[in-house]
Amino acid sequence: MSQERRATVRDVAARAGVSPGTVSKALNGTGQISEATRERIRRAAEEIDFRPNALARSVFERRSYTVGMITTDSFERFSVPVMLGAEDALGAGRISVFLCDSRGDPIRERHYVDVLLGRRVDGFIVTGRNFNRRPPLAGARDVPVVYALTPSADDNDCSVVVDDTASGRLVAEHLLRIGRTKIAHVTGPERFDPARRRHAGLTSALAAADLELTGMAMYGGWTEAWGRQATHILFRENPDIDAIHYGSDLLARGGADALRELGRRIPEDVAITGTDNWELIAEGARPPLTSVDLRLADVGRVAAQRLLDAIEGRPHSGLEQVPCQLVVRASTDETAG
Amino acid sequence: MSQERRATVRDVAARAGVSPGTVSKALNGTGQISEATRERIRRAAEEIDFRPNALARSVFERRSYTVGMITTDSFERFSVPVMLGAEDALGAGRISVFLCDSRGDPIRERHYVDVLLGRRVDGFIVTGRNFNRRPPLAGARDVPVVYALTPSADDNDCSVVVDDTASGRLVAEHLLRIGRTKIAHVTGPERFDPARRRHAGLTSALAAADLELTGMAMYGGWTEAWGRQATHILFRENPDIDAIHYGSDLLARGGADALRELGRRIPEDVAITGTDNWELIAEGARPPLTSVDLRLADVGRVAAQRLLDAIEGRPHSGLEQVPCQLVVRASTDETAG
Repeated sequence: MSQERRATVRDVAARAGVSPGTVSKALNGTGQISEATRERIRRAAEEIDFRPNALARSVFERRSYTVGMITTDSFERFSVPVMLGAEDALGAGRISVFLCDSRGDPIRERHYVDVLLGRRVDGFIVTGRNFNRRPPLAGARDVPVVYALTPSADDNDCSVVVDDTASGRLVAEHLLRIGRTKIAHVTGPERFDPARRRHAGLTSALAAADLELTGMAMYGGWTEAWGRQATHILFRENPDIDAIHYGSDLLARGGADALRELGRRIPEDVAITGTDNWELIAEGARPPLTSVDLRLADVGRVAAQRLLDAIEGRPHSGLEQVPCQLVVRASTDETAG
Repeated sequence: MSQERRATVRDVAARAGVSPGTVSKALNGTGQISEATRERIRRAAEEIDFRPNALARSVFERRSYTVGMITTDSFERFSVPVMLGAEDALGAGRISVFLCDSRGDPIRERHYVDVLLGRRVDGFIVTGRNFNRRPPLAGARDVPVVYALTPSADDNDCSVVVDDTASGRLVAEHLLRIGRTKIAHVTGPERFDPARRRHAGLTSALAAADLELTGMAMYGGWTEAWGRQATHILFRENPDIDAIHYGSDLLARGGADALRELGRRIPEDVAITGTDNWELIAEGARPPLTSVDLRLADVGRVAAQRLLDAIEGRPHSGLEQVPCQLVVRASTDETAG
């Protein structure tokens, strides 16, 4: 044991001029203790290089360097990249992330909030589906919260989301650039904000070129079956359509099947585009799909950064949209792939 | 302030007959302290209902009620249900789960192990792809580890995996029951243990009925394109095939496209089956796919249970296979769906 003796609570107490019990209070977070005393203990601890283990230290510093990540939507493909993006951004800075799957159940969610507050998390990231706004997280008290993908219904909260409007606009600009002018749109249910925003982006960019959507916006479900059915309906009424934008890659897969049944070549007769850039689906399509990548991992990373800012006393407020990106493949470009 | 005064470290010290500093040691985990003293302090704390916060308590009890979950394979669809199954099993018991995405990088993995050991996690769950065996987790010292989905290369470790052999067997028995006898097989790369085990299960059940596989086992890739190409090759050499089992649902999707191109009806002429029961893909297929559900969430739940046992001093050892289940849809049953 020739090692130098490690500093103890007693040494800190002696140096700070307080009792070991007061140092314990600072450590275990119970009892009354003034900020001045806490600061004196903190400084003493630093001077004699007192190193309690990570758990005790986190009590001492009033930061646990942990963050709770609550997903409302367990098996949903979309929240996973967001979570992993956030974990990546936080883990690099030595912050550990608690994973909680509330499954959209408010009681489960509240349970997790309470458990994690008991663990003194420094903040929460709340994620879910890219759907409509959600109620603010209940019971988080004054611990910072950032919403990722699913925005908070409270406009003062900090929410980081994908830019659905831009996704529709990017597609329209691309289709116009390759010379298409009779552009139709097939998407999910109208009650989904993202479906409406993607549609709005598409039509506003067409309007800027003095064009309108060909046929009605085909709101329906998110299934391949709807993509196929809606495409058949569109062609029955508008046989001269030269491009269709789909609100998801699966819808576009169904659409591609319908176009084959109709004897239309992709992209020579009809260019098609999807949304999500779900690689397995977009690249497996015949031909591979041009699609908008909504940059879900970036949504997670930006949310993590905003939360770190808030933890350090620089809170953000309001909605932040993360830029998306068009990935061009053979379904709009004969020379691609 | 008419509330009853909460017990403090000082009260515990008085009752246990030790100094407050000794109680602090027990709390912050530093310094030498005998098991007898620790036990006396623990009992005293219990008697006067001393309740430090969760962080301090976890130091005191030598358990943090946290578990580290390390996934080697971030965006892989298969590890996510495993993680959520484990989180579900642990969260219900008030254990919080740290999420770590090592991305298969050993240095990143080691970093996470060190950080989480500093947080005094009670154990680790390591998950990844359903692929070959992986090296045991480095640096976990005497903290229990359970492997989920990807087994450890050390047979003494506790690994919980899917039952790939049974998946092939279940399919063969189903196809035989519906009267098919000319059964072919298309699957992923031969270097994947799961691909070989699924094949072995299929052929052993056929052998039990005095049958052989029709055509060669078509090992290739996991893509739809391979499913389509392999199906065309099989039919060129064996036009009387009446069923094909695919090693994944995506392979079966490619196969269904090829059968349409060949003018064969599913299931009247050729019954087809997939593996994974990836609902979005299996239900979106035309017709919907009969597929083996590998029960990934159960793999996570069982792994969590095995880890809890180990934390409580009852370690498990060796490989445990979780039963899978056949989900019958219209691709093998004209009357289904």
